[in-house]
Amino acid sequence: MTISSVRVAADRLRAVGARPTPVLRSDWVDATAGCACYLKAEHLQRTGSFKQPRRGSRRRGRRARRERGVPCCVVVPRTTPGAKIDNMRRYGARVVLCEPTQSARSETAAAEAAAMGGAAFVHPYDDAAVLAGQGTIGLELAEELPQLDAVLVPVSGGGMVGGIAVALHALRPGVRVIAVEPKGKGLGRCLALSQRVLDPEAANGALDTIADAIRTKCLGPTPWAAASQLLDPAVLSVDDDQIRAAMRIALLELKQVVEPAGALTLAALLSPAFKQLREACAAHARAQHEHQLRHVAAIVCGGNIDLETLFLHVRTGP
Amino acid sequence: MTISSVRVAADRLRAVGARPTPVLRSDWVDATAGCACYLKAEHLQRTGSFKQPRRGSRRRGRRARRERGVPCCVVVPRTTPGAKIDNMRRYGARVVLCEPTQSARSETAAAEAAAMGGAAFVHPYDDAAVLAGQGTIGLELAEELPQLDAVLVPVSGGGMVGGIAVALHALRPGVRVIAVEPKGKGLGRCLALSQRVLDPEAANGALDTIADAIRTKCLGPTPWAAASQLLDPAVLSVDDDQIRAAMRIALLELKQVVEPAGALTLAALLSPAFKQLREACAAHARAQHEHQLRHVAAIVCGGNIDLETLFLHVRTGP
Repeated sequence: MTISSVRVAADRLRAVGARPTPVLRSDWVDATAGCACYLKAEHLQRTGSFKQPRRGSRRRGRRARRERGVPCCVVVPRTTPGAKIDNMRRYGARVVLCEPTQSARSETAAAEAAAMGGAAFVHPYDDAAVLAGQGTIGLELAEELPQLDAVLVPVSGGGMVGGIAVALHALRPGVRVIAVEPKGKGLGRCLALSQRVLDPEAANGALDTIADAIRTKCLGPTPWAAASQLLDPAVLSVDDDQIRAAMRIALLELKQVVEPAGALTLAALLSPAFKQLREACAAHARAQHEHQLRHVAAIVCGGNIDLETLFLHVRTGP
Repeated sequence: MTISSVRVAADRLRAVGARPTPVLRSDWVDATAGCACYLKAEHLQRTGSFKQPRRGSRRRGRRARRERGVPCCVVVPRTTPGAKIDNMRRYGARVVLCEPTQSARSETAAAEAAAMGGAAFVHPYDDAAVLAGQGTIGLELAEELPQLDAVLVPVSGGGMVGGIAVALHALRPGVRVIAVEPKGKGLGRCLALSQRVLDPEAANGALDTIADAIRTKCLGPTPWAAASQLLDPAVLSVDDDQIRAAMRIALLELKQVVEPAGALTLAALLSPAFKQLREACAAHARAQHEHQLRHVAAIVCGGNIDLETLFLHVRTGP
């Protein structure tokens, strides 16, 4: 997976109507995070999520499928919020629920593909074409924000963080790509030990987090191979209370509806861990004449949430 | 007030950190409105409202004042929501409440200006510099959307609609500037009769609408003189239920928090009256080989609202 496959994906995405997403700014967020923050609003992509139009292949994407009249089945864990399932159906997909494990997902998807007479299976992240499609976010960042020092990217199976890392490594090798995970994932330890899966038995389950979109425990083999060496060793972890507080800030300061996974990087920007990282980096930069974390982008990746759940989260936030 | 004063205002605004606002798109809104809709997100301006940074003069704007350490007093009706008053204070303004009438506002502002030792009084709309500042929205639309057939603009005292009309008349004279008002204002009749104030006694009061930011009954003399002849004779009126429904659509489909005034033009796009206007225009265009309403921008002007009020409005909507 290379920068040229990202460029090809960008052309294809333009052809199916995807647009570069806006970059949002907020004085309040800048002041609180202690640096200039650029919130890349992927939740404002046409479908309310980076997932569909960022697909890399011409034949891919649930929404694109509907527009071409191609039958499409989406397999999702039974814990998926109703608002997302409704959206998938609205775009013409047949939705099949499965148990919230990696193995149940693979088995159900294989069975459905066979029942459809050998339909192509598109993995949500373990696929070079998916990485290339999501790498187009990195392409846009490189074009829009030449001043960038780092980008915070939410991580689940690694498709987005992997694609962005490959794109930025090619175009702006000085930009640090920092993964943000739901607490308990332990990606930092995986990176330190250069080991994709630390506990094979636990890897099949789902993370305990309100961020329903990003409960995958380990990076997939394809993103790991493409990008694990390009990621910053620092990984930021946020818990549910930090996510809820960030969802509230998104509403009040950014005027944006984001789902829990979409608030992950904003939660990280506002966290004590980010402040420590920024200060450590500043001390090191002064000594080494290197870049500090002065201009930091954060990917806001999804806004598919029903209003009752949204209100509940922002009311119960700390 | 001319296009060159709008260009001067644009340069000054850039210098104090205002940015062009994003244009949001939604497949759902396009399909429901029956045309391509471009939602110009003025609520994403740094302060959450078009009002402050769009000021035309170098010496103006509450936020700009704080940054320069200039003492600033803002006179607002006592019916102003607490969230807005909090925001004004956060930007360093002293806030003085008055009765919700035009005369009380003028008298209170004059008294406060005198008490401050002769401070300059900045009227919210009856001021050529304010029109020029808000005309920069028209400048951006002309640059960003060459395909535009019309723009829907919320109207209160007329500063925004007047500034945009002057700018677009100079740069894209074919674009129709259509005012959207809270029901009961009666601007359409004023335009038809070329009379700014139809009932001088009633003009002093406030409109009965949940759109607290736009309760002024008549256009001010300055916007009326500058732009009343440039406005489309069709004026769209929306009621509180339509506004609440549009706030809900803004949350669900656009992922945006907007206050009632901010949802006004979206409510108009989704209204039966807009459909009638579009169809009448299409029939006429076919006969006369003129433009139809195919590409329509709508100004989303404010997102200053507290969450409890927001939730209340979108829950009680139809």
